[in-house]
Amino acid sequence: MNRRKFFKNGSLFALGASVLTPFDAAATTKDFDTYKKNKKAKNIIIVVSDGMSIGTLNMTDLYLSRKTGTGSNWLQLYRDNKVTRGLMDMASLSSIVTDSAAASSSWGGGFRINNGALNVSPTGENHLPIWQKFKKAGKMAGCVTTVPITHATPAGFCINSKTRKDQAGIAEKYLNLNFDIMMGGGNEYFSPDKRKDKVDMYQKFANKGYEVVKNRKQMLTADTKKPILGVFSDSGLPYTLDRNNNKELAKNVPTLAEMTQKAIDRMKDHPEGFVLQVEAGKVDWAAHGNDIGGLLYDQTAHDDAVKVAIDFADTNDETLVIITTDHGNSNPGTIYGSKANQNLDSVQNYKHTNEWILNGIGRESTINQIKERIEYANNFVVTDEEAITLLTHYANIKTEDGLYNPRHLPFKLMAEIQKQRNSIGWISQHHSSDYVEIAMYGPGSDLLKPFIKNTDLHYLMLEATEVENNF
Amino acid sequence: MNRRKFFKNGSLFALGASVLTPFDAAATTKDFDTYKKNKKAKNIIIVVSDGMSIGTLNMTDLYLSRKTGTGSNWLQLYRDNKVTRGLMDMASLSSIVTDSAAASSSWGGGFRINNGALNVSPTGENHLPIWQKFKKAGKMAGCVTTVPITHATPAGFCINSKTRKDQAGIAEKYLNLNFDIMMGGGNEYFSPDKRKDKVDMYQKFANKGYEVVKNRKQMLTADTKKPILGVFSDSGLPYTLDRNNNKELAKNVPTLAEMTQKAIDRMKDHPEGFVLQVEAGKVDWAAHGNDIGGLLYDQTAHDDAVKVAIDFADTNDETLVIITTDHGNSNPGTIYGSKANQNLDSVQNYKHTNEWILNGIGRESTINQIKERIEYANNFVVTDEEAITLLTHYANIKTEDGLYNPRHLPFKLMAEIQKQRNSIGWISQHHSSDYVEIAMYGPGSDLLKPFIKNTDLHYLMLEATEVENNF
Repeated sequence: MNRRKFFKNGSLFALGASVLTPFDAAATTKDFDTYKKNKKAKNIIIVVSDGMSIGTLNMTDLYLSRKTGTGSNWLQLYRDNKVTRGLMDMASLSSIVTDSAAASSSWGGGFRINNGALNVSPTGENHLPIWQKFKKAGKMAGCVTTVPITHATPAGFCINSKTRKDQAGIAEKYLNLNFDIMMGGGNEYFSPDKRKDKVDMYQKFANKGYEVVKNRKQMLTADTKKPILGVFSDSGLPYTLDRNNNKELAKNVPTLAEMTQKAIDRMKDHPEGFVLQVEAGKVDWAAHGNDIGGLLYDQTAHDDAVKVAIDFADTNDETLVIITTDHGNSNPGTIYGSKANQNLDSVQNYKHTNEWILNGIGRESTINQIKERIEYANNFVVTDEEAITLLTHYANIKTEDGLYNPRHLPFKLMAEIQKQRNSIGWISQHHSSDYVEIAMYGPGSDLLKPFIKNTDLHYLMLEATEVENNF
Repeated sequence: MNRRKFFKNGSLFALGASVLTPFDAAATTKDFDTYKKNKKAKNIIIVVSDGMSIGTLNMTDLYLSRKTGTGSNWLQLYRDNKVTRGLMDMASLSSIVTDSAAASSSWGGGFRINNGALNVSPTGENHLPIWQKFKKAGKMAGCVTTVPITHATPAGFCINSKTRKDQAGIAEKYLNLNFDIMMGGGNEYFSPDKRKDKVDMYQKFANKGYEVVKNRKQMLTADTKKPILGVFSDSGLPYTLDRNNNKELAKNVPTLAEMTQKAIDRMKDHPEGFVLQVEAGKVDWAAHGNDIGGLLYDQTAHDDAVKVAIDFADTNDETLVIITTDHGNSNPGTIYGSKANQNLDSVQNYKHTNEWILNGIGRESTINQIKERIEYANNFVVTDEEAITLLTHYANIKTEDGLYNPRHLPFKLMAEIQKQRNSIGWISQHHSSDYVEIAMYGPGSDLLKPFIKNTDLHYLMLEATEVENNF
């Protein structure tokens, strides 16, 4: 008889109530926790911070601790000894440094594939994505994210595609698969005004019975008896820091935590349970831009979603919560120096991201305009020389490339200017090969070993829910 | 009755043999492991990689996996599910980014103090260092390191000093405290030819009954019935990579693993047990220099010492092994790109560190000499332009500062040149504020919680050994 089955039959719990009585209270509690951990999971909520180096997790906790007196919800679970933890090797088939598509596919399809693809092997084999498996097993399934809902991380749990780039095609695949809630950005892949084929995907989803919501209020009031499609921006949602300091955005765009709560409300009463992927996708975009305000506040938004998931799991002991990231990105860290404390704290005065700052500068900007904009957004005054150096990029005397930087804005230079004042350094503007942090809470969390491969997570999710892998 | 005492009395073990019999074999094994973890520790071996960012741990494991097919001993313990793990907040009293002196003092004295001091509070209060506590409790105590034995990390476990800089004075304090084995570098603080006061510390140690050893052969054959002082270089020991590729150094300088084995042999039969600190101190120096060959091979030397400690603990179930670092440094990572795999692997062809390369260049060097030296050491050819840029630093047209860089050699520039070929990036040349990894093996390891403060480790070591803190 295996241990899980033994626990399921309740025998050990009976034992706990009798033979274990001589133990002290702590031991009994621990045995109860073990019992709980070993239960079958009916629901899974996986909360992914995309592109989160361990330094991002640490720094956000430290930043919040110093700002509010309380660290992150994620690390509070460690302080309270409530979760199991592991390191996870995220390498793809083609590289020690994965992209988000191969990373999500390793979890979603159970196989390592080449960077750039979604659950399609180099020889063209399709691996059935895990949210489809769970749908076949009778569960509800959904995704919410701060980047386009057709982006790599949600797509890796949901569909097969030779390339992650075909986001218009991915939107069509979603339509055919009847997911129960899909929300994020990505209007350009749904709107007839934006799609090359002029198809109105919103109408198609509505025709299938979906409630289509396009702003925060619609989302909050949407009927949870219907499937929901929510799209709140053309591409990714605005950064949390920019949203929080712009009344219009705050009114129109939901937070990741709000989307997470809605998704739970939509699916929580389903008799066969549900699976939900939550992605803080712009943590990765911020890291690509070495954009510390974007990074810390979107990581905090992820952390708020962690709390929503844990709070639900605390009221429902059949819910496994998985908290992780798909790869490191730029490995940020606060650097030694006599002013390290006050420099890190100075980010508390930032009102806007570097994306906001740099998008508001043009080749026609004056030195004073640049200085005023940065002072408004970051609460420090750059030198004339620094402002001039920034301006050279807009005059195309110098340029920067980079993912999610179509306008070739000088993100690297801006981070270097800030580094002198906030002591925060970055190794690059790209993903890193680091093994990543993963933590689990609730039934099935005992299955997590201290070191796993990315593909192990696919089979762990099936095992935790006792869904046989015979599709 | 507390749990530990209960286990000590053997009652649960008896229970394990009877009531637990209905469980399957895995459950019984796990209960035995729990029993073992809860035993009293008679010995402690703490193996510290100084200045090891989590990226250093990850990258070394990945590097070794690709080079040899087997990863690091440290992460193998995770793969085998043999240890408990935590994150540790290493902040000092004066800064979120600690130095090694305050870090070691937090473990050694149980209090956070300002950077730069050793177990002396800002108001001048002395905290009794933990190796002195264990000596008073009847145990043997010692330290081995690859930097001067008078350096911050060993000193923080052994002595009080207002400043870490007084290494000549620290050598005198060691003399008075009768530690059982002290080995590393630091001849300049022991030799009458090097000390300002011309005192012959070697003679003084010999007069107290120490066996004084100054090269590998003497160390390997030293009588383990006597206390041992071993000093193998003026300052830090040579980097492992340089040592391995220089017959003279390999003959004269012991490895960290060899020193660790000797220290265990010296102390293992002591009836009251022993405590040993092992430090891979030059991992930190390599990170300060962004010197990847130095970093990966000295981290591997640390890892070899981990194996020596674990192998001993496997033959002695009263030994707690603690594996950790005192702070991050420069947060290295392998960066995304189409050649990431082969670029990381290219470090396998490195014969020497950047310290070796740069110390062999001078303002009189020719472009061809520079190119040949780098090709010999790194197996790639720099461009004329790169060689000229290097040369400008020797001509004092440009300079670099940095810890452990008295000659102002261009370490940062060299790392940038290498980055184009090995895809490895660094955030700075300084310590970082990251929470650090800590793992424990053997009796007492159950005391480790998933998130601790640095000072918690002081009390954990006392609790694991059941040494009352009443000094």
